[in-house]
Amino acid sequence: MADNRTIRSEVLDFEPYSPGLSIPEIKRRHNLARVIKLASNENPLGTSPIVQRLIERLAGYAFRYPSPGCPELTEALSEHLRIPSERFVVGNGSDELIDLLLRVKAEPGRDNIVVFRPCFSIYRLQAKLCGVEIREVPLREDFTFPWDEALRQMDENTAFFFVANPDNPSGFAAPKAQILDVASRLPDSALLVLDEAYIDFAHDQNFHSPLGKWSELDNVVFLRTFSKIYGLAGMRLGYGIMPSWLTDYLLRVKLPFSVNVLAEQAGLAALRDRHFFDRSLQTVIRGREFLNGEMERLGCRVFPSQANFLMFRPPAEAEQVFEALLSRGVIVRPLGSYGLQEYLRVSVGHDEENRIFIQALQEALAEHA
Amino acid sequence: MADNRTIRSEVLDFEPYSPGLSIPEIKRRHNLARVIKLASNENPLGTSPIVQRLIERLAGYAFRYPSPGCPELTEALSEHLRIPSERFVVGNGSDELIDLLLRVKAEPGRDNIVVFRPCFSIYRLQAKLCGVEIREVPLREDFTFPWDEALRQMDENTAFFFVANPDNPSGFAAPKAQILDVASRLPDSALLVLDEAYIDFAHDQNFHSPLGKWSELDNVVFLRTFSKIYGLAGMRLGYGIMPSWLTDYLLRVKLPFSVNVLAEQAGLAALRDRHFFDRSLQTVIRGREFLNGEMERLGCRVFPSQANFLMFRPPAEAEQVFEALLSRGVIVRPLGSYGLQEYLRVSVGHDEENRIFIQALQEALAEHA
Repeated sequence: MADNRTIRSEVLDFEPYSPGLSIPEIKRRHNLARVIKLASNENPLGTSPIVQRLIERLAGYAFRYPSPGCPELTEALSEHLRIPSERFVVGNGSDELIDLLLRVKAEPGRDNIVVFRPCFSIYRLQAKLCGVEIREVPLREDFTFPWDEALRQMDENTAFFFVANPDNPSGFAAPKAQILDVASRLPDSALLVLDEAYIDFAHDQNFHSPLGKWSELDNVVFLRTFSKIYGLAGMRLGYGIMPSWLTDYLLRVKLPFSVNVLAEQAGLAALRDRHFFDRSLQTVIRGREFLNGEMERLGCRVFPSQANFLMFRPPAEAEQVFEALLSRGVIVRPLGSYGLQEYLRVSVGHDEENRIFIQALQEALAEHA
Repeated sequence: MADNRTIRSEVLDFEPYSPGLSIPEIKRRHNLARVIKLASNENPLGTSPIVQRLIERLAGYAFRYPSPGCPELTEALSEHLRIPSERFVVGNGSDELIDLLLRVKAEPGRDNIVVFRPCFSIYRLQAKLCGVEIREVPLREDFTFPWDEALRQMDENTAFFFVANPDNPSGFAAPKAQILDVASRLPDSALLVLDEAYIDFAHDQNFHSPLGKWSELDNVVFLRTFSKIYGLAGMRLGYGIMPSWLTDYLLRVKLPFSVNVLAEQAGLAALRDRHFFDRSLQTVIRGREFLNGEMERLGCRVFPSQANFLMFRPPAEAEQVFEALLSRGVIVRPLGSYGLQEYLRVSVGHDEENRIFIQALQEALAEHA
């Protein structure tokens, strides 16, 4: 019998949200004056000072509705990347764009998506919410991409193939030659969604990203974000670059005011602040090399990373190392939710944070080796 | 044959987005130094100075991801309204909550929603995107609610009955006695979603809102927003109050970072700024009475409003009046998209804006009467 407590079957087995400890709670519990968060791949330099000044100047506009479609930022991105503006959709983080892509094109109960396992969770979660089948292809043991196996999983009902490049949590990035090859072999039904959230941190972006070939790629969607190198994770700002027949439909169904009025302006200022971009990149590359060397010295298996984080397997139980780091005021990311119980992920911090982390890791390993 | 251009059938007949003129474009076209926007029901006093200071102070946090679920704001709302925190879900505007409610509970291809016609467009658009049937019940000619007809449209597959109270665009508000009666007569399957975006502007909130009876209402969802009396339309912040079995599932499927990090803090500051709230309310009540009297004097049919806007039927063609106002630097809202071609809606501005609007209206009517 009908009952207003009815929940859609797709939703019933979503996990309840379980919040981690906040920084103040960690401080209290472990009696710490300072806590360093290297868990969410945020920018080690924080927010650009130029962006901060802009937010301060525009705070009085908080009462105004945003412009639907973020026309100013769309134009600026178009100029910045020299790609026509009708190929861009700006979203409330890439998360909104992932959801919109699925809702516009993937037919519930018929279509499927293909993803690697492990991968960024939002691809799977939104597909599940949309009632779309998820086909998972295990990564190789070294966390490289098994392209042929992924292609074998696809059929004429595959709507999307989601690939993060660089990948999260491993930091691995495939060369663009492989990506172009895969794009040319997709079933007609399928679009490759290439999530390039971390591409700015790659040693040679042009070796990894096929964005330069956008005009020839009619079955690829690029996702990019202001959350990482632009230092705007909290403002929620991402964008997609895709064929214009697809932007058209995304913009038709998008909630008109999903992007915060200050976020669009912050994005414009961040795009112009080349100095902050360069400093962020240098800080991450320097820190990544430092952490890589030091963690190997401490006996960790460290995976080569093209992103602003490093996945590693400590020479002791990962959960114990995580807790020992926490008690010393350093938050890293346990990877149990990715099915990688033996691994941890650390975001590259600024130089001082990286030194504090290595010191804490050394102590943690001495305690648990 | 399959083709990657396939779009879901539900999506194909969404209207393309057509942007209106921006304020700078209007200034240019009509050679105006000042343009007054009375089209989006924003707060006539702008953003609270206390909230502005807070945004300025916290601009440096833009690089941090928000806390999933907005725990601080949830607690503050719970204390403010004396309702347990497990009944609250904070969203990226009420728009996100409307979408989440549908996605959690309404079964595509089976369930239906009931709405009045005209009504706030997002109820219909998100239901359509979800593949859920929409049953529209025309408002009475005086824009009051035909409750019995709405109840007759419901069956055991009705998932939601969406009602805005006060209503948009008419400003009409039903008494809570009627709402309680309707809630008691819904089919078991159905939840009443009572969108109280404008309730703070009602002359006697307690006469119109059944929120005080929340603990007895197990089939009612209340939606409220920071966009109107709290002056935060651009920050995108709304919340729902609903039975805890439902908050549980909404929080399970909600994108974890949908709410901007500054928005949550702005909401906390806005809740504490009682002075701004009171001034906003007084400004709107005073302006509403002034506009009502003046528009009637100019021969408009003005509908009684409990909100921060007034719907009116000018004694001339509405579109001509709209354009004549625009050429004088006043933007109001044409209601063609609501199917009300003969009506306009004007947001209550501050005292000076209201006087300028009346002057412009008088000139516009002299031109077109």
